[in-house]
This record gives sequence, C-alpha cells and structure tokens, in this order.
Amino acid sequence: MLKKIGILLMLLPFLVQSQTEDEKQLREIYTTSLTNGKSYSWLDYLSNQIGGRLSGSYNAERAVAYTKGQLDSLGLDKVWLQSVMVPKWTRGIKEFAYFETSPGETTNLDICALGGSVATPEGGLKAAVVEVKGIEDLASLGEEKIKGKIVFFNRPMQPDLIQTFEAYGGCVDQRYSGAAEAAKYGAVGVIVRSMNLRLDDYPHTGSMSYGDLPASQRIPAAAVSTNGAELLSTMLNLNKDTKLYFRQTCKVFPDAQSYNVIGEITGSEFPNEIITVGGHLDSWDLGDGSHDDGAGCVQSMEVLRLIKQTGYKPKRTIRVVLFMNEENGLRGGKKYAEVAKQKGENHVFALESDAGGFTPRGFSFDADDANFNQILSWQKLFKPYLIHYFKQGGSGADIGPLKGEGTVLAGLRPDSQRYFDHHHAANDTFEHVNKRELELGAATMTSLIYLIDKYGTVQTSKIKG
Amino acid sequence: MLKKIGILLMLLPFLVQSQTEDEKQLREIYTTSLTNGKSYSWLDYLSNQIGGRLSGSYNAERAVAYTKGQLDSLGLDKVWLQSVMVPKWTRGIKEFAYFETSPGETTNLDICALGGSVATPEGGLKAAVVEVKGIEDLASLGEEKIKGKIVFFNRPMQPDLIQTFEAYGGCVDQRYSGAAEAAKYGAVGVIVRSMNLRLDDYPHTGSMSYGDLPASQRIPAAAVSTNGAELLSTMLNLNKDTKLYFRQTCKVFPDAQSYNVIGEITGSEFPNEIITVGGHLDSWDLGDGSHDDGAGCVQSMEVLRLIKQTGYKPKRTIRVVLFMNEENGLRGGKKYAEVAKQKGENHVFALESDAGGFTPRGFSFDADDANFNQILSWQKLFKPYLIHYFKQGGSGADIGPLKGEGTVLAGLRPDSQRYFDHHHAANDTFEHVNKRELELGAATMTSLIYLIDKYGTVQTSKIKG
Repeated sequence: MLKKIGILLMLLPFLVQSQTEDEKQLREIYTTSLTNGKSYSWLDYLSNQIGGRLSGSYNAERAVAYTKGQLDSLGLDKVWLQSVMVPKWTRGIKEFAYFETSPGETTNLDICALGGSVATPEGGLKAAVVEVKGIEDLASLGEEKIKGKIVFFNRPMQPDLIQTFEAYGGCVDQRYSGAAEAAKYGAVGVIVRSMNLRLDDYPHTGSMSYGDLPASQRIPAAAVSTNGAELLSTMLNLNKDTKLYFRQTCKVFPDAQSYNVIGEITGSEFPNEIITVGGHLDSWDLGDGSHDDGAGCVQSMEVLRLIKQTGYKPKRTIRVVLFMNEENGLRGGKKYAEVAKQKGENHVFALESDAGGFTPRGFSFDADDANFNQILSWQKLFKPYLIHYFKQGGSGADIGPLKGEGTVLAGLRPDSQRYFDHHHAANDTFEHVNKRELELGAATMTSLIYLIDKYGTVQTSKIKG
Repeated sequence: MLKKIGILLMLLPFLVQSQTEDEKQLREIYTTSLTNGKSYSWLDYLSNQIGGRLSGSYNAERAVAYTKGQLDSLGLDKVWLQSVMVPKWTRGIKEFAYFETSPGETTNLDICALGGSVATPEGGLKAAVVEVKGIEDLASLGEEKIKGKIVFFNRPMQPDLIQTFEAYGGCVDQRYSGAAEAAKYGAVGVIVRSMNLRLDDYPHTGSMSYGDLPASQRIPAAAVSTNGAELLSTMLNLNKDTKLYFRQTCKVFPDAQSYNVIGEITGSEFPNEIITVGGHLDSWDLGDGSHDDGAGCVQSMEVLRLIKQTGYKPKRTIRVVLFMNEENGLRGGKKYAEVAKQKGENHVFALESDAGGFTPRGFSFDADDANFNQILSWQKLFKPYLIHYFKQGGSGADIGPLKGEGTVLAGLRPDSQRYFDHHHAANDTFEHVNKRELELGAATMTSLIYLIDKYGTVQTSKIKG
C-alpha cells in the first residue's frame, strides 16, 4: 500500500504537469476555433452556395467536390473519395394537399412527401380520412374502418421530455412504418403529423420504408405541418366525412454513384490505430441542411484543421469522414465499415456530430465501463467550457456499423431544444446556425479527439500495456 | 460515531421518502410548464401587443397595467403596484450617421443613441475621428489629439471567453463611461462599437453616464453596429482624415410616475419570510424587449402560477416582483429594497431572471458557503433537466439592493451564446425566443423556489433551529 502511494507521489509532478498541458491544449483549441475558425464559412458555402443535397442529386456531388477540395487545401497526409452506390429518390414537383369539409369547400394543407414514398396517382388521391394516434390503433380499427381511406397518424411528440431526441424516438415509427402498416389494412394513403415540437406551417420530411410490402401494395405517404395536423384533426372532429386530397410525383431511380469524402492525418506513433470523426454530407432537399448535417460535416473538418493549427502532432491516425446517404439508406456508413473490415483497419474510436450545430453540452458513448470511466476522468477538463453531459448509450448512425471489436463510439450532444424546429424541413437553413455555437461544438469535438489520441482507449492501452 | 450512523440509518427512510417527494414535485413543475404553460403567451402579448417599454413611456405603463391584470387573474393572495419615480429619456427621431472619406463621398452607418445621451446640435455633428481601443488610450493620446474630434471606441468583445457576459463586462465601460472620459480631453462626441459578438448591422443601445460632468460639457454618444465599426475602422486606416457625421435628437424629461408590479402567495407557516422572484418590466425601445427582459418577467409570473397549478402550498411568502427601470436607473430595484427595509420585511431569498429566455443551464448565487452548500445538495434533483451550473458570485441587478442581512440572492443562468446577438438591439424580438427554452427556464426557477421554500435558507433554519 505504502509502495503504491510512493509511486503515486513520484508520479504526482508528472501527473500535474500532464494535466496542465491538457488544460493548455484545450484552451488553445477553443480559442483557435472561436477566433480563427473555418467551420462557419465552410457551412456558409455548403448551405448557401450548394444547398440541400439529397443522395444521388447533383447537389450531393457538388458537396463532395467542394469538401474534397477544402480538405485538399488543409495539408492533410491523405485525402480521398470512397466510392459508394446510393439510392436515388426525387421529390418531384411541389406536393399539394387540401381537405374538403363539404363538396367544393376546401382548405389547403402544407405537406411534403416522405422520403422513399411512391407518388399518388397522376391526378392525385382523394379519400375519407381516419385519424389514429399510432400504429397500435390500426389493429383495433381493422380493415373495415381503414379500407379505402387515408390514415392520418397524429400522435404528437411528447413535450415534457427534456431531451427532444427521446420525444422523436417515441413518434417516428408513425413516419417510418405508418404506410407499410396501414397498407396491410387496405389504406390508400397515409399522412403523418410532422416530427416537430412547435406548432408551425413547415412539413418535415424524413425516411420511410415499405418493409417487404410488394410494389403493387405500396401507398403514398406525406407529412403534414403541425398546424395543418391540428386543423385537420379539429375538422375531422366537426365532420367525420371530411375528405383529404393530396398529390405528389416522387420517383425512385436506379442507384447512383456517389462518395464518402475522407481525409487523414497519419499518426506519428501508432498509424494503424484509427480515430474517425464525421458527419453526413447528404441532407434532405427541403432546406439547405445546415443543422442536419452540414454542421457536423464542417465541425469534423474543423477537428483536423484545429489539430494542425494548434501544432498538435497526433500519435494515432485522425481521419475525417463525410458520410454519404445517412438520411435514406446509410450506404456511406455501411460502406466505410465494410472497407475498414476488408482492409483489417483498427478503428479505436469514432465520433459523430449529427444532432445540430447548437451549443454543445457533452457526448454520449457506446463504450464499456472501463472506457467510459477513463473518459469521465477527463470531465473536469471540459468544465470551463460548460461541457457537462457524459452518458453511456448512443453515438451516431453513420459510425454505428463500426461497432464491435472494441471500437469506442461517441456522439456529440448539443442542446436539443430547437433541433426539431428545423429537422428535415424547409427552415433547416444557415441563418438558424449560430457561429459561436457551431465553433464551440467543433472545439469540444477536437478536445475529445485530442485526449483519445493522447491517452488511447482502454483497448489500445491494453494492447501496448 | 456509531450513534450518529444509527441516527442516520433511522432517518434514512424519511430522507429517501423526502427525496422522492422532491423528485415528483420537480417532475410535476417541468411537465406543467412544458405542457400547460402560460409564459410564452404572456410574452407574446408583452412583445407583440405592447413592444419596447422604456421607463416613463406609455408602453411601460401599458406593460404595468397588462401584467397587473394577469397577476390579478391568477388568484394570488395579494397583487399591488408599488409607486416609483423613474427617469424619462426619449430617443427622438431616427438617428442618422455617415462617414465622409473625401468631400461629398459618404457612406451611411447604422447607429443609435446611447440611453441617457444628449442630442447632437440640431444640424448634426461632423468632425474628424480618433479611434481607440478603450478608455485607457485616452490619456496617452491626450487633449492634443482628441480635442474637437469624435472618439471612436472600438474594442470588440473578446470572442474566446466562453461566458459571453464576461466578454460584455470587459467592454461595456466604453459604452457607459466613454463619453464622460472623452469629454475631459475635449472630444465633441463619441461613437462606440456595439456590445455584440456577431458582425451584423444592428446598433445596440444601453445606458451611459456622464458622471459628475456639468451639463455644459456633456457630449453626444451613439453606438454603431459591429459591421459599421469594422468598416469605419478600415476607412480610418486608409484615410486618417475621414470625417464622421451623426445626428440624434434624444431628450431628458422630468422624472415620471411609474410602478413595480407585485403579487404574492402568502406563506402558510412563515408568512413573514419572503422569497422574491422577478425580472424587469422596462426594456430598451429598439426591439420589443423579449429576451431583455420580457422573458424574465413572464418566467417570474409563471413561478407563482406553477406553484398554484401544481397544488403546492408554500410555507413562506412567495412574491413576484416586476421591477421598473432596470435599464436606465434601477429605480424599481432600489425602491423595492427601500420599502422592504422601512417595513422591516425579512427577505430570505431573491431570484432574478435577466439573462434571456434561452435554455437554462443553472444559477449563480450571492450566498455564503453554508447556503451555497445546501443548494449544492439539491443539484442531483436538477440533473434530469440538464441543469448543471451552480456557482457562487452574481445574481441580478434589481435584487442587488436587497443584499445584506442574510438574504440569499440568485440569478438564473441560461445559455449565453446568443444573448448579445439581440441585447438592446432592434432584433431583441419575440421570434427569437423559443417556447420550450423559455418554459424550461420558468420550471427551473420554480423548482429552486420550491426547494428554498420547503427547506429554508441556512439563516431561516437557524432562526427556527
């Protein structure tokens, strides 16, 4: 016991020294990001000069070319494109919808097709409406009450959940599986309340799936704005015979060629130990994808730039990956993990930023207790930056396929209160991202990557220890 | 020792029980605020139906009448107006400014008069400009280089400070005392870079003082937008002879009659122990004062409403105070403390919300260690609501005069990153307040007030113990 204390005492000056060095490095990272950052001007270009960039679109390819060019200019050790085939779905011309309370008495509704939905018949689709609060309601209504109708999924996000992603998780099955489930009871279409905690006029798109439903049984699915959903529900209460009309011309094309954009600083000591940081480069098409996930892309690029800018020489390989196709396929994330496996790459850590460019609060981790405890020991380093949230469970969709074999995964957790005001909607635009908040996020990510690089994960230590 | 442990073990079920009750009460408070809150609709009225409400203006009196009416409707035990005389300053017609790089070659600048400034001469004021980075620079330049000129204070807020109020504190002397100091060296006017971390076109007003400078020596003072400040500085670098013109018609009137708006729930056990919660009802005139401090007013009103709504019967008297004239005189805060002292009222605790309606992060406290430690023991109750910031030092301007005699003071600390984008400017408007963020703040305040009421402060405990 005394011996151990003796060793600790001998180590103390070293530990204190090391601590001070970390404090300095974090201060340097934050200061550089806030006074001389690039993330905001990159996002400006991505959002305002390119805009929404759905997989397979020209804009997605413009985003690939732009971000590769920017990474090329950073003086990284390696920058490349990783080929990936992506689904291509197009929204078509502006969707249109109204409800009819009596013949000829119509009120327009703000809708948008859900990503992956089929079109309505060319002249649109008009039918009676049955409102439900979720997929669970379908069975009790049965085919008798659903057949030939449009099912209106109207369970709102739960407002009293503090973490809005939990409220999203509690509702999104209506959007993702509502059409497939309603079709089984003979519904002719579905309309889903937007995943939005605010009452406003923006319809929010997002991915949906028909599961294994044969093509002939697929029914069109659209989201309606929260104000529209409230109004439609009120009208249905006043008049059960209210009919809904909607028209959308969306279309699925053959898979398209696209790319993950990758750059790296090769590690000086352990080049084969890879630390990945990323966001997804594709976005929905309604807004310009500033929060989802332009922010995560430019923050991830900024991580590598800040490492170079602050003069830190990483021991391990730090890699930025801008994943293609998170929104409607996850092909980029799957491809990246597949190639990593083929090559036998050792991914020790991966961090994703895909929860908006808001003030960072901390991280969530897919990590075992030993790794999580190591990370917790760094918590005090983050305190001056008001980073306080460190929790096990959840990281990011694109890095998910890297899971297993001891890779520690993490997700940046920004303040989530306003995220779903903008998520997948036409108001996910540049002016809703605050420069400081974005830069604080980039610095917070860089700080964690720095600590992981310097101290390794518990697995890497074990390998060496 | 064993005895003590024995007592603790005996107390354990009680402590666990009590803990559960507090957890339940906080959950109830947050849920009620987020699902059935009034703060946002009150703010809508205050911002959009009334608007900016500078002390002594008709709008300030409309705000007094409106908020008193709303408090009357809550079924409180007592609602009243507390008379207070306030300074009355008016901005006059829209300010106008340009700089002239050569005769006739002019560029307009976005400026606004600082609160309390004198007018320019009727035809405006035109003079050469001397740029400084702060009051410290005046002495080294001396009268020779300042006399007859307009002093341009252009030290920006420091962007790498994480807490933006610190950056504000490091700059605001230029606004508050710049004119008084520059006048001593013979300056004819001052123009101050807006206290804003963003680069944009909004000039930010705010209070200034001439100190004990005789009326005849007072010089007009205006704020220029950050974009304007950058441009002017660039032009001065290119051409030292650049002249600045500005015109403003502001005016001081005799003090006006106004009011603090007060309501209370009388305590059931200790009615003479008063817990005050408040914000300030006056605002600057450029925007509608939504963040500063409409948010704090409606949150404070909501504290009392949530207490009643959740069925909690406070032991102590809970009082909401909407203070008049924080912005340019603090007369309301001073008057409230003065009357409290005259009446021998025992204020055990006071909380102010005056840092914007953003996501709450925690509180700062003007409290001794014993009280602060008691509050820290409640920290875990706040964890599910992501409230993590508990720090000694700083509370609120209006409650400041209550300091001393064992009153514990506290200030709500919301996320501060966007606050100075809007502070005292035309874009401090309702659409920049997020409903959930505002409601989370109200619930956080109510939770602290509940705990203080239930457990008392260390002083109150001592009195009873």
